[in-house]
Amino acid sequence: MPLIRFGVSIEKDLLAKFDRLLKQRKYTSRSEAFRDLIRNELICEQWSGNQAVAGAVTLLYNHHKRELVNRLMDIQHNFGDIIISSQHVHLDHDNCLEVITVKGSPRQAQKLAHTLKSVKGVKHGTLSMSATGKGV
Amino acid sequence: MPLIRFGVSIEKDLLAKFDRLLKQRKYTSRSEAFRDLIRNELICEQWSGNQAVAGAVTLLYNHHKRELVNRLMDIQHNFGDIIISSQHVHLDHDNCLEVITVKGSPRQAQKLAHTLKSVKGVKHGTLSMSATGKGV
Amino acid sequence: MPLIRFGVSIEKDLLAKFDRLLKQRKYTSRSEAFRDLIRNELICEQWSGNQAVAGAVTLLYNHHKRELVNRLMDIQHNFGDIIISSQHVHLDHDNCLEVITVKGSPRQAQKLAHTLKSVKGVKHGTLSMSATGKGV
Amino acid sequence: MPLIRFGVSIEKDLLAKFDRLLKQRKYTSRSEAFRDLIRNELICEQWSGNQAVAGAVTLLYNHHKRELVNRLMDIQHNFGDIIISSQHVHLDHDNCLEVITVKGSPRQAQKLAHTLKSVKGVKHGTLSMSATGKGV
Repeated sequence: MPLIRFGVSIEKDLLAKFDRLLKQRKYTSRSEAFRDLIRNELICEQWSGNQAVAGAVTLLYNHHKRELVNRLMDIQHNFGDIIISSQHVHLDHDNCLEVITVKGSPRQAQKLAHTLKSVKGVKHGTLSMSATGKGV
Repeated sequence: MPLIRFGVSIEKDLLAKFDRLLKQRKYTSRSEAFRDLIRNELICEQWSGNQAVAGAVTLLYNHHKRELVNRLMDIQHNFGDIIISSQHVHLDHDNCLEVITVKGSPRQAQKLAHTLKSVKGVKHGTLSMSATGKGV
Repeated sequence: MPLIRFGVSIEKDLLAKFDRLLKQRKYTSRSEAFRDLIRNELICEQWSGNQAVAGAVTLLYNHHKRELVNRLMDIQHNFGDIIISSQHVHLDHDNCLEVITVKGSPRQAQKLAHTLKSVKGVKHGTLSMSATGKGV
Repeated sequence: MPLIRFGVSIEKDLLAKFDRLLKQRKYTSRSEAFRDLIRNELICEQWSGNQAVAGAVTLLYNHHKRELVNRLMDIQHNFGDIIISSQHVHLDHDNCLEVITVKGSPRQAQKLAHTLKSVKGVKHGTLSMSATGKGV
């Protein structure tokens, strides 16, 4: 992909503060930081549109509740067209963190996250909104 | 404040998408958009630090509950050193939106917002995190 | 409005932690805290729908840029049907915080906020998403 | 864990709206929904404290940039004490989504996320803030 170089004007003080922030966050170039800021905005927009997105659902639950595990499995099969894979972590004797990667419609991904989070026994759920990489 | 001009390199595709977003959001220059993105990041950081910030607390409540109004007033007097002014809007016969501007410690502003929101009868509260303008 | 009383079952440990959080945040009753949590969720939903909402836009800017002030005024007149009032705070010799209360379509409120934030010279803008009080 | 049952009073209208929202989100009981709302608040608090948390970092990148893959690997080894496992998804010919589960200090998890996101070639990164399950 060709790079385009162009000029940007920023107040001296503001730029100095930005440079300090970039150093803290381990950036090595301003261009890289600007690309990240741009992609953040674009990905926010994608999640309110109809284009395919990608992301991850996290679920925290106690695996001793056996019907819970089956229920989570059933739901995932119903959303099979947007689920790519899942990763299961044993946090301690009782608690598991399951991370499910998804790709597809933002609406479907949100519905899946809501449906999984509402299962009795799921302690917490999050939805990470990322992108398929197309167009960002 | 002197402006500093410097070059930024962005992938052609990404830049085209950014330009479309800026048009949608009514920006007239990329530099202006970048300044906004930078300031957003800096202001986020300020609110997790100790520097003075500025912002606004919104409160939605039913003014017919008279002791509520007095309670809100009392709390505001206890936080007099960070409250600048307040604006009262009559949304309908029952509901009011009160907007209180604040300036001072992020910790105090958050405490004020929590304290006001927890008053019985307050239906909703928000805290807008902005800045004093120094350093952004 | 009649109150409905019903039973809720929460794990002992979780409830103890919740009670500690409520104390920190100055709540005097669990019911009040639950109402706030419910209203938060409902108001989130309202902002992604078509019902009228209320809220506040904050703008941080340097008032010495005179054309900026006129530009902000013009835009506000174009959105006159959703703007209720505005409050102006002098933060220091240079910086102002303007807080504009709005009531109307969520889409229009967001468009107003984007349009104002993109004006050259506006350093920062936020949109507080609250409600008209109907239905929460 | 013993359950504690207690009474909650909510306005009739507000409760009706909450029940509709729960139906939409597939909840089968109010208690379950309240537990989720409580845990959300507690987990928010944990991430601003010092207790161990759990979560997931997502990274979107183009794997054809080979030094990028090595750099991401090196960083992960430097944060070995908080990384549990990672999952790699091939989104298309170019783009990968990597999901890294973490457990440990909130500060360290945020530092890891910032460090990975700032690597040249990483298009987007997110940090899902969940919990270890202890105390929620």
